[in-house]
Amino acid sequence: MISELDLIRRIREQADAVDESVAQGIGDDCAVLVSPGVQIQTLITTDTLVEGVHFDLSWHPADLLGQKALAVNASDIAAMGGIPRFALLSLAVPPMVDPKLVDTFMTGFMAALDRYGMSLIGGDTVKSDQGIVLSVTVLGEASVGKVVYRSGAQIGDQIWASGYLGQAAAGLEICRRGGDLTGAYPDLVEAHLNPAPEMALGRILGVSGLITSMIDMSDGLASDLAHICEESGVGAEVFAKDLPVSGSTKQAALALALDPLSLAISGGEDYRLLFTAPVEARSRIEALAGHAVGGKLFLVGTVVSGSDIVLIDERGHKSSIAFQGYDHFRGGLGYPQHCCQVSETAKASGAA
Amino acid sequence: MISELDLIRRIREQADAVDESVAQGIGDDCAVLVSPGVQIQTLITTDTLVEGVHFDLSWHPADLLGQKALAVNASDIAAMGGIPRFALLSLAVPPMVDPKLVDTFMTGFMAALDRYGMSLIGGDTVKSDQGIVLSVTVLGEASVGKVVYRSGAQIGDQIWASGYLGQAAAGLEICRRGGDLTGAYPDLVEAHLNPAPEMALGRILGVSGLITSMIDMSDGLASDLAHICEESGVGAEVFAKDLPVSGSTKQAALALALDPLSLAISGGEDYRLLFTAPVEARSRIEALAGHAVGGKLFLVGTVVSGSDIVLIDERGHKSSIAFQGYDHFRGGLGYPQHCCQVSETAKASGAA
Repeated sequence: MISELDLIRRIREQADAVDESVAQGIGDDCAVLVSPGVQIQTLITTDTLVEGVHFDLSWHPADLLGQKALAVNASDIAAMGGIPRFALLSLAVPPMVDPKLVDTFMTGFMAALDRYGMSLIGGDTVKSDQGIVLSVTVLGEASVGKVVYRSGAQIGDQIWASGYLGQAAAGLEICRRGGDLTGAYPDLVEAHLNPAPEMALGRILGVSGLITSMIDMSDGLASDLAHICEESGVGAEVFAKDLPVSGSTKQAALALALDPLSLAISGGEDYRLLFTAPVEARSRIEALAGHAVGGKLFLVGTVVSGSDIVLIDERGHKSSIAFQGYDHFRGGLGYPQHCCQVSETAKASGAA
Repeated sequence: MISELDLIRRIREQADAVDESVAQGIGDDCAVLVSPGVQIQTLITTDTLVEGVHFDLSWHPADLLGQKALAVNASDIAAMGGIPRFALLSLAVPPMVDPKLVDTFMTGFMAALDRYGMSLIGGDTVKSDQGIVLSVTVLGEASVGKVVYRSGAQIGDQIWASGYLGQAAAGLEICRRGGDLTGAYPDLVEAHLNPAPEMALGRILGVSGLITSMIDMSDGLASDLAHICEESGVGAEVFAKDLPVSGSTKQAALALALDPLSLAISGGEDYRLLFTAPVEARSRIEALAGHAVGGKLFLVGTVVSGSDIVLIDERGHKSSIAFQGYDHFRGGLGYPQHCCQVSETAKASGAA
């Protein structure tokens, strides 16, 4: 079985971009292009969503899916500190699809374009033999010197999360199981169906110059922190007691017989920002960001030397969580994974 | 059943790009972005290929598929007179896919990047429940004022094709049927498996200032000419006797019991350029383009008033072919169609 990380490594080994216009190629939330004498850099990102893998129309309203297809790409622009500008949409749909479904999807997609101040400039429409496949490419921009990469984390930096963790994963599991739970946890269901990327916060942090690295949490805290650490050549310690888990996530986890800590560590698609900054920047970050997110910033750990991502529980016990999610999941819980994994590495390891 | 044209119209009706940076939104081979004070415009295009719909790995070598996935996008840049620069690749693959197949695909894709002087700058890798889905986005550039659109055709212009028509469609049908034919027509099989876009010619025509409109023939002459006519607000007359059909296509058509004229009119994926120019430009176009394509330029018709695309046969009989392919296909021949149609309008009409 091939994993997403294998696949990305294979591609990255072969891709050897030496073009001087490429400030960042593969390996961050967006590619970054520069032009001589131009003060605006272009950010580009693309995400593909496959029906049956990343969304299920039996519970996902088509208009919210349209919003989400754009939101997950806009979030990648936010994670670099940029402003999204343009979108291209490729739709692969079965010929017998209900035209109303396409219209409803487009209504949501266009509403999201409006919300983010973006324009749809192109795309492609093709036939699919099976389910719907959506590919969205987004172009954004940021001023030269204000782009935040994954690669700048420094030993001693504090690690921040911009909101609650595990909400979307809990929401997905609620939608999967259906029944009464759906009505009981509207915030969690909304987090899964209609995620709101941190557009304002990403921009504020980007221009502030206070932070050293940033990523949006699409794959889950453990994996996304591992991306930062890999690109920065550092390790990280995360403290279980500091992980922000909302009251409703805790309640839902109880009802679902899931571990809330596991949801927080390995649950994907929250689209909160994960970033690092020197200790000295703490009060200024809290002041700046308070306006954008109502103060929901959480310190979750520390950047350390080495390359491992370590979770420290309340008894001081340490366990490695890099890329693999929390150990509880190794048995193969059928855990909700982020949309963008070819396979879940934790499961592959657990099955070995 | 929803058709590609329906779908594009639905999307275009909703998309109302009023951003002043957008010189061209939906409705051409590429979107075109401009920046104040910058003399280079950005061209962007995206194409999606679905396994079982647009390619069949039982006969399509993975390295050639990698080359083709990039070539069909580079061709869209050529059709605007631009130079391709950067690519993003989204791969949706089943978890059980053979990693060697992915490596072979990437080898072909990277070879094509080299050939066109491009860099791979990003992408996405996701799990597919069923077949492989490839989405490629390409960014290119062209000087301000040198971009050629679909919308400039003028009444009285001559219509040119930059090479033989129907070769890729014949090649696809040969691959489908398999057997001895595959070895007998290597040029046609190559046209299907490994199309060579007109990068040099597109560029030369773009900077020449001699032509009024251009498109690459991905959907087939009838459909692509209809795109030019629709965007330009004109009609066209095409002369059957002038359509360039190679000797091997004629022979293969005989062996396959297909009509060579139908292949030339409705066969997709040749990726030759179709363009219009004033009569006075004829000799200069022939002189300029001779270097790029070895003189294989063909005059196939004339731009006229109205909105219809008319085929005139050797007896002077006229038939309408706009978007619908040649009438011979209305019965539903199972004809090879271009990769980028949600459904084939001719078939939908024929079945009604």
